[in-house]
Amino acid sequence: MINKKIKVFAPASVSNVACGFDIMGFALEIPGDEIQLKIVGNPGVKIISITGDGGKIPSDYKLNTCGYAVYKMLTELQLEFGVEISINKKMPLGSGLGSSAASAVGGVYALNKLLDEPLDNFELVKYALFGEEIASKAIHADNVAPSLYGGFVIIRGYEPLDVVKIDTPDDLYCTIIYPHVEIKTSKARKILPELVPLKNAVKQWGNVAGLTTGLLTNDYDLISRSLKDEIIEEFRSKLIFGYNELKQSALGNGALGCNISGSGPSIFALCKGKESAKKIKKGFIDTANILNITNSIFISRINKIGPKII
Amino acid sequence: MINKKIKVFAPASVSNVACGFDIMGFALEIPGDEIQLKIVGNPGVKIISITGDGGKIPSDYKLNTCGYAVYKMLTELQLEFGVEISINKKMPLGSGLGSSAASAVGGVYALNKLLDEPLDNFELVKYALFGEEIASKAIHADNVAPSLYGGFVIIRGYEPLDVVKIDTPDDLYCTIIYPHVEIKTSKARKILPELVPLKNAVKQWGNVAGLTTGLLTNDYDLISRSLKDEIIEEFRSKLIFGYNELKQSALGNGALGCNISGSGPSIFALCKGKESAKKIKKGFIDTANILNITNSIFISRINKIGPKII
Repeated sequence: MINKKIKVFAPASVSNVACGFDIMGFALEIPGDEIQLKIVGNPGVKIISITGDGGKIPSDYKLNTCGYAVYKMLTELQLEFGVEISINKKMPLGSGLGSSAASAVGGVYALNKLLDEPLDNFELVKYALFGEEIASKAIHADNVAPSLYGGFVIIRGYEPLDVVKIDTPDDLYCTIIYPHVEIKTSKARKILPELVPLKNAVKQWGNVAGLTTGLLTNDYDLISRSLKDEIIEEFRSKLIFGYNELKQSALGNGALGCNISGSGPSIFALCKGKESAKKIKKGFIDTANILNITNSIFISRINKIGPKII
Repeated sequence: MINKKIKVFAPASVSNVACGFDIMGFALEIPGDEIQLKIVGNPGVKIISITGDGGKIPSDYKLNTCGYAVYKMLTELQLEFGVEISINKKMPLGSGLGSSAASAVGGVYALNKLLDEPLDNFELVKYALFGEEIASKAIHADNVAPSLYGGFVIIRGYEPLDVVKIDTPDDLYCTIIYPHVEIKTSKARKILPELVPLKNAVKQWGNVAGLTTGLLTNDYDLISRSLKDEIIEEFRSKLIFGYNELKQSALGNGALGCNISGSGPSIFALCKGKESAKKIKKGFIDTANILNITNSIFISRINKIGPKII
């Protein structure tokens, strides 16, 4: 077992998905993190390299989402060897694309593979959540679960955790623009009201039912009618300069819907087919140029498999 | 065309369905209303008989849910003849089972059949809603739409009205107990708060996504985990004497879930298979006897076709 090593890719993810605040997310094919694990004789977890993070990620495993998730898994499985971790961030941090979740997922997925898969995805989610908790100070599975399961995932509930993967149309694409501004997840959460109007909540769960049905029955038109948020968007969109213009650009270029990815600042647009995704990308670029918003853009199909060995 | 007549059955329905307040409902095979329509030379609508209502339903067509719905349809279609209506209520009024919706649906469905179906279900819903408005002073389609479409229906939104019928497992049964107490829909609505905690709303839409997925994928266990209401039940259940005991009885006898039908007082329990439905019925009867609750009980499969000619 000693010196055995593995390198995996763990995907970024879009959580919330308009109406599905805190309960929905889907995995992307790009971007994502590359995580390498090596089994060593010395017990414990050591992070031996981090690249692509601009020096922002702590290398102390107890403060590192990947390191801590792997540590918790090692400890609870009572393994007697140790693990060395190399992290190559190939996606932006603090972008609203589940960067910390991807790192945690990569770590536990890689360790599970090295151990010949003693745990299933549901158990791995729990370990990855320990890592996610380090980063966001709160347990939200709507990035970890899609990154790990792949595809489109519903977190039906948290007490106990209930993860449901649902099938989606093959031709569903996502265009993402990441405006280069930082939004703290904790701040994006604090600006939300504790109480919401019942009539808006009813609209929201009507859309949740519609979106779920649309995805499961390949009904793009229903997906489009349902990709709305009656509760969160009005608060969080104010933190994202140019949000309304970028959203209108996407809708004008054929997006089924467009909303905030996670707590932002990234904005996702879902559409049917790659050509449509490219058209939306062009619109994003033009709009961002006019508004002088520096940005990164990704086009990805829904990633139906989750992490993979590379 | 004169003297042409038709008799139809229009089904009762269960709305709200635990987590789906104001957006979900399903049709029942029993009970329901029998509505007879006859084309006559004199223009206008005349209600010539009402039976089974205990004298409670107005025979003035403008105050009658069936009569007014038929009147609106006659008028807007600019038909030059008139209609005579006979209503046989074969279901309890004010029970939370969509009695007024069934009458309105029966009327518009029957007239549409007599006219060789110029309108589709979506257009008929709008006319039936005129009738429903007479009865409940508010427009809610979550009884009218399932009664008319049959099956399990989502009202994704109201502006504009968006009705989505979803497929459900064949072996899904419903046991209903109607405790003989009256609850005014308007009162049941007034006791609801205008604002609800965001965290409860999130749980609710997690369950909505779960229930929708469970129904569409024949996942009875997921249906069961999702049949919960975090928002409405705590308020409305207080209006129904014995609610907690009846619910516990159903769950103890194998129900997937149990909750208030519409605004009550009827209580529905969903389960897999007819034997399970019978067991739940027995539990309801025993519990109601202990608590001295006079009641009626119905067992029905989900009615997948809606109204029918009889």
